[in-house]
Amino acid sequence: MELKKVSIIMGSDSDMPIMQEAGKILKELGIAYEITIVSAHRTPYRMMEFSQNAHKRGVEVIIAGAGGAAHLPGMVASISPLPVIGVPIKSSNSIDGWDSVLSILQMPGGVPVATVALNGAKNAGIMAAQILSIADPAIRERIIQYKEKLQNEVLEKVQKLNS
Amino acid sequence: MELKKVSIIMGSDSDMPIMQEAGKILKELGIAYEITIVSAHRTPYRMMEFSQNAHKRGVEVIIAGAGGAAHLPGMVASISPLPVIGVPIKSSNSIDGWDSVLSILQMPGGVPVATVALNGAKNAGIMAAQILSIADPAIRERIIQYKEKLQNEVLEKVQKLNS
Amino acid sequence: MELKKVSIIMGSDSDMPIMQEAGKILKELGIAYEITIVSAHRTPYRMMEFSQNAHKRGVEVIIAGAGGAAHLPGMVASISPLPVIGVPIKSSNSIDGWDSVLSILQMPGGVPVATVALNGAKNAGIMAAQILSIADPAIRERIIQYKEKLQNEVLEKVQKLNS
Amino acid sequence: MELKKVSIIMGSDSDMPIMQEAGKILKELGIAYEITIVSAHRTPYRMMEFSQNAHKRGVEVIIAGAGGAAHLPGMVASISPLPVIGVPIKSSNSIDGWDSVLSILQMPGGVPVATVALNGAKNAGIMAAQILSIADPAIRERIIQYKEKLQNEVLEKVQKLNS
Amino acid sequence: MELKKVSIIMGSDSDMPIMQEAGKILKELGIAYEITIVSAHRTPYRMMEFSQNAHKRGVEVIIAGAGGAAHLPGMVASISPLPVIGVPIKSSNSIDGWDSVLSILQMPGGVPVATVALNGAKNAGIMAAQILSIADPAIRERIIQYKEKLQNEVLEKVQKLNS
Amino acid sequence: MELKKVSIIMGSDSDMPIMQEAGKILKELGIAYEITIVSAHRTPYRMMEFSQNAHKRGVEVIIAGAGGAAHLPGMVASISPLPVIGVPIKSSNSIDGWDSVLSILQMPGGVPVATVALNGAKNAGIMAAQILSIADPAIRERIIQYKEKLQNEVLEKVQKLNS
Amino acid sequence: MELKKVSIIMGSDSDMPIMQEAGKILKELGIAYEITIVSAHRTPYRMMEFSQNAHKRGVEVIIAGAGGAAHLPGMVASISPLPVIGVPIKSSNSIDGWDSVLSILQMPGGVPVATVALNGAKNAGIMAAQILSIADPAIRERIIQYKEKLQNEVLEKVQKLNS
Amino acid sequence: MELKKVSIIMGSDSDMPIMQEAGKILKELGIAYEITIVSAHRTPYRMMEFSQNAHKRGVEVIIAGAGGAAHLPGMVASISPLPVIGVPIKSSNSIDGWDSVLSILQMPGGVPVATVALNGAKNAGIMAAQILSIADPAIRERIIQYKEKLQNEVLEKVQKLNS
Repeated sequence: MELKKVSIIMGSDSDMPIMQEAGKILKELGIAYEITIVSAHRTPYRMMEFSQNAHKRGVEVIIAGAGGAAHLPGMVASISPLPVIGVPIKSSNSIDGWDSVLSILQMPGGVPVATVALNGAKNAGIMAAQILSIADPAIRERIIQYKEKLQNEVLEKVQKLNS
Repeated sequence: MELKKVSIIMGSDSDMPIMQEAGKILKELGIAYEITIVSAHRTPYRMMEFSQNAHKRGVEVIIAGAGGAAHLPGMVASISPLPVIGVPIKSSNSIDGWDSVLSILQMPGGVPVATVALNGAKNAGIMAAQILSIADPAIRERIIQYKEKLQNEVLEKVQKLNS
Repeated sequence: MELKKVSIIMGSDSDMPIMQEAGKILKELGIAYEITIVSAHRTPYRMMEFSQNAHKRGVEVIIAGAGGAAHLPGMVASISPLPVIGVPIKSSNSIDGWDSVLSILQMPGGVPVATVALNGAKNAGIMAAQILSIADPAIRERIIQYKEKLQNEVLEKVQKLNS
Repeated sequence: MELKKVSIIMGSDSDMPIMQEAGKILKELGIAYEITIVSAHRTPYRMMEFSQNAHKRGVEVIIAGAGGAAHLPGMVASISPLPVIGVPIKSSNSIDGWDSVLSILQMPGGVPVATVALNGAKNAGIMAAQILSIADPAIRERIIQYKEKLQNEVLEKVQKLNS
Repeated sequence: MELKKVSIIMGSDSDMPIMQEAGKILKELGIAYEITIVSAHRTPYRMMEFSQNAHKRGVEVIIAGAGGAAHLPGMVASISPLPVIGVPIKSSNSIDGWDSVLSILQMPGGVPVATVALNGAKNAGIMAAQILSIADPAIRERIIQYKEKLQNEVLEKVQKLNS
Repeated sequence: MELKKVSIIMGSDSDMPIMQEAGKILKELGIAYEITIVSAHRTPYRMMEFSQNAHKRGVEVIIAGAGGAAHLPGMVASISPLPVIGVPIKSSNSIDGWDSVLSILQMPGGVPVATVALNGAKNAGIMAAQILSIADPAIRERIIQYKEKLQNEVLEKVQKLNS
Repeated sequence: MELKKVSIIMGSDSDMPIMQEAGKILKELGIAYEITIVSAHRTPYRMMEFSQNAHKRGVEVIIAGAGGAAHLPGMVASISPLPVIGVPIKSSNSIDGWDSVLSILQMPGGVPVATVALNGAKNAGIMAAQILSIADPAIRERIIQYKEKLQNEVLEKVQKLNS
Repeated sequence: MELKKVSIIMGSDSDMPIMQEAGKILKELGIAYEITIVSAHRTPYRMMEFSQNAHKRGVEVIIAGAGGAAHLPGMVASISPLPVIGVPIKSSNSIDGWDSVLSILQMPGGVPVATVALNGAKNAGIMAAQILSIADPAIRERIIQYKEKLQNEVLEKVQKLNS
């Protein structure tokens, strides 16, 4: 079985539609991942266990999404030595997303979370790939190609507008 | 030794000047308390251990203060069955206190934190006393007297203004 | 007749759909409650009378919900010695809920309101139960079980995702 | 003794330096006023009594200043039939003044508070004079002169810049 | 023809559905009003002319509603000696209503606008009536009755809930 | 006498230290300007007169700075056909500058104000020069040189860091 | 072929419905324009090339619209000597438009962007015309007429209301 | 010469006191770095050149700090395939730091920036080390030790409080 170097976790299954975007882009970039639910608030022991063991299981990057008072990314980062990418999610009853953005971004000195845009799971996937590319030139190459693809898509639209 | 029914914890010793206000008012209301540092991000195991055992040690109410991406009150509340009062602290590099307020207040359904005002440790102490008064008529009486004292202080100032 | 230890009040009947969540969880936790309308702005005398007498009637915890310039929780807390849990409600014409959150949370020193998340009536109910558990081990036990239920619901979803 | 048609009240004596600006401009406009402390949260009975009787004592306009979760202007307005002008005050531990602004401004339908700018006690005094001018042409005349004075002060500065 | 003591103006006819609420409550309180469009930005000369003459025509109170960078209430207040009540309107492309609230509320010293809640035209109408009541005991009486009506409506809902 | 193509105006002489930055950079770019006080709220007639005549006097660009409920740039833009550059100023009692930013930026369709950053008078001056460069190749050239100077200043600092 | 003095660019084709408003009003004012897509983030080389050459191709004013972390207007302004008008766009996943507003408005000293209201592309078009009017009296005349049209549209609505 | 795998860049030398914190922690973790100034707005060509070549020079992670309309991290990320960590800096004239936070965080899909807390350069350094640890077990080990050090520092303070 292929080793899954990226672990995508989220606080609630209601976050799945957004967090799957991280998986989709990872797949596109040829990177295996696992995806599951780990709630800091409802399953704190599972969160502890996950965070203590992820790097021992061969995971290299953790992507954690959560909404509201979003403690999952920061708590995982407090325990795991791995880089943790945080995805603020605009949940229902959120105060316009400010709550999850600030709860994830404003970590104290010593415990960083690499925060991406509100609902930015796709970018979390790309960042995970960029991190893995540190040790894997093939991924670096695919990222360079992905950037070219982004560029070409715009250039094609420009062509269409001009014609 | 007197049983300490209120445990005041904070994420950093830099929060001590603010959090001591909780202790001061508890003392004034004749309630024993302990005060210590428990950091969700730097001492997650201590935080777990504290949260699992507080109610077993006879603690009845937890007051937890933290700044920035303030995860301490919510994480303690996720583990302990006790009522947790959260004190958002305006730390340096805070985004005007919004980060700690929203990180503590916006807890998901199932795991409440009783949040007080920014830097409102004194009110956290009073709320702890009000909670303990559920089981102790003497504390209720002291709260009623405290409210009268608040009122009388204003009325005296009114007198002075009028004279 | 069973004594109702929790009183749920709200500023307007339009708040009922949200505030009923507090009653629902209290019922689930085996705690009797009353639910009614008390408007600080439209029925100030009723608000005064309610606040002066609640603890004399045997009420132990008050849950007060209000939207906009939400004065109900704070005004009740200024008069009653009981712990008051405030529920900010995102009403129509609210400025994104900030108005009710800040009107309830930012109480001055001496008069705390235990504030929960925007529209967080369910959490207000749980907090009320946690407060009552100070004097009632059976409720404490039910809270512990409730936390386990929350955990198990997530774990079952994890199972389903894995299978 | 001259009848005092404007009553200036504030939640705390710490608000006095700001609220005195209202008195100063009223004096300049030849309008008698009273100034005192009425705290909604610490002296709710005094607040009720004040609000029930102000119009019976001959007061015509109330100016109420408060900071944080500023309930004083709105609560007075809920009881008194008089026009109430609210002055949001940026107190210490305020969240940048947003709390007092929103607590005073966002009153529900039926109970208006005429809100002025943050710390805008001077403008509250002018608004009180404008309101009294409804029944007193002499005050109207003084307001017109005051506006001219404002204009002339600027024009003189313009002169000085040009010379 | 009855003298119209209240003039309701707004920056755009798209504000009419909201601003008509001011007229509706004024009518209920037996107060004659005029209602029209005056745009500070598109008809500055009309705005000047309106502001210079309103008090000469017998108008006693101006209610001005506007959205976005809402300059109408403040500009009218800079010219007219009359009390001006400002209604911030949440227009399309508004930044959550903050723009109109702050543009109307934060007037400099010397030129007050009596600001009501976002979209709070009804309250603007009540405030206008309260201002007119300075000179008209019959209006004062109707305001007292209106407050009683508000109270009774709540009390009836309480009755229904209890039965 | 040299024709002054840029007119710098401000709501209050307290804005002078900030607004002079616009003049300073214009001088550096070899563009003559006038600078004076025009208050929308205290001198509305002067504001009208200024706005009606500026383009007739040969002014080509107006720079208008104001704080709080900053109506000056928008009102001038409503009358003058000239491009108006707005400078939001963070005055005392401002709500963190949000009031002036939103009052200037959020103009309705039909009446634009070219808004620059909070306290960004220097950039207003540069923008005025860029606008004048439409009709004057010498100014365009100086702007290109100014950009080179900005670049060289950074490159020199880089050199120093490296050495 | 007519020289196109205004270039309208945007970060994504999803911004087209909003940005076309700029073109529409320019056409109404008799000004030729080009409209295309230039993404700072996906086509940085195209952005560089565009910015270096626009003024060489005869473009006089650039209108750039973008949402979220909106870097297009500022980056074009860093390279091109032309005046750049920035249009903040409220894209999906935006934090209420604050992100694009602040990303465009808060440019550092030396590199201005003339920012218009959120989604204010129409005003960007008018501002571009006002800038071009510096060198073209016919455009100035059309702007004066446009302002009259705006005024007359309101006055007609006033007529209809009165009749 | 030791290869410098981390490149720390900033928009202005005024950001140096904050950005040096990134270097300090990297040094503590035994990781070589370079530190220099690259301004997106004043040296766009240098920024392009830097971004195109960093990965070719052996740089593995870029840390970019900027204030206000902070475009540097996002623009570098648009060009370089490397992971870019963004540090929002609260510069003078910032709107409370919101501008730099949102300008860096809210990147569009396809171009992530790993954002850390306001002024959080130290955390950027730690995140860079965590990323490099993907390919270097010795760094992973040092991160684990660093986390233990953080924990022990708190535990020692706890000891001191207890004694």
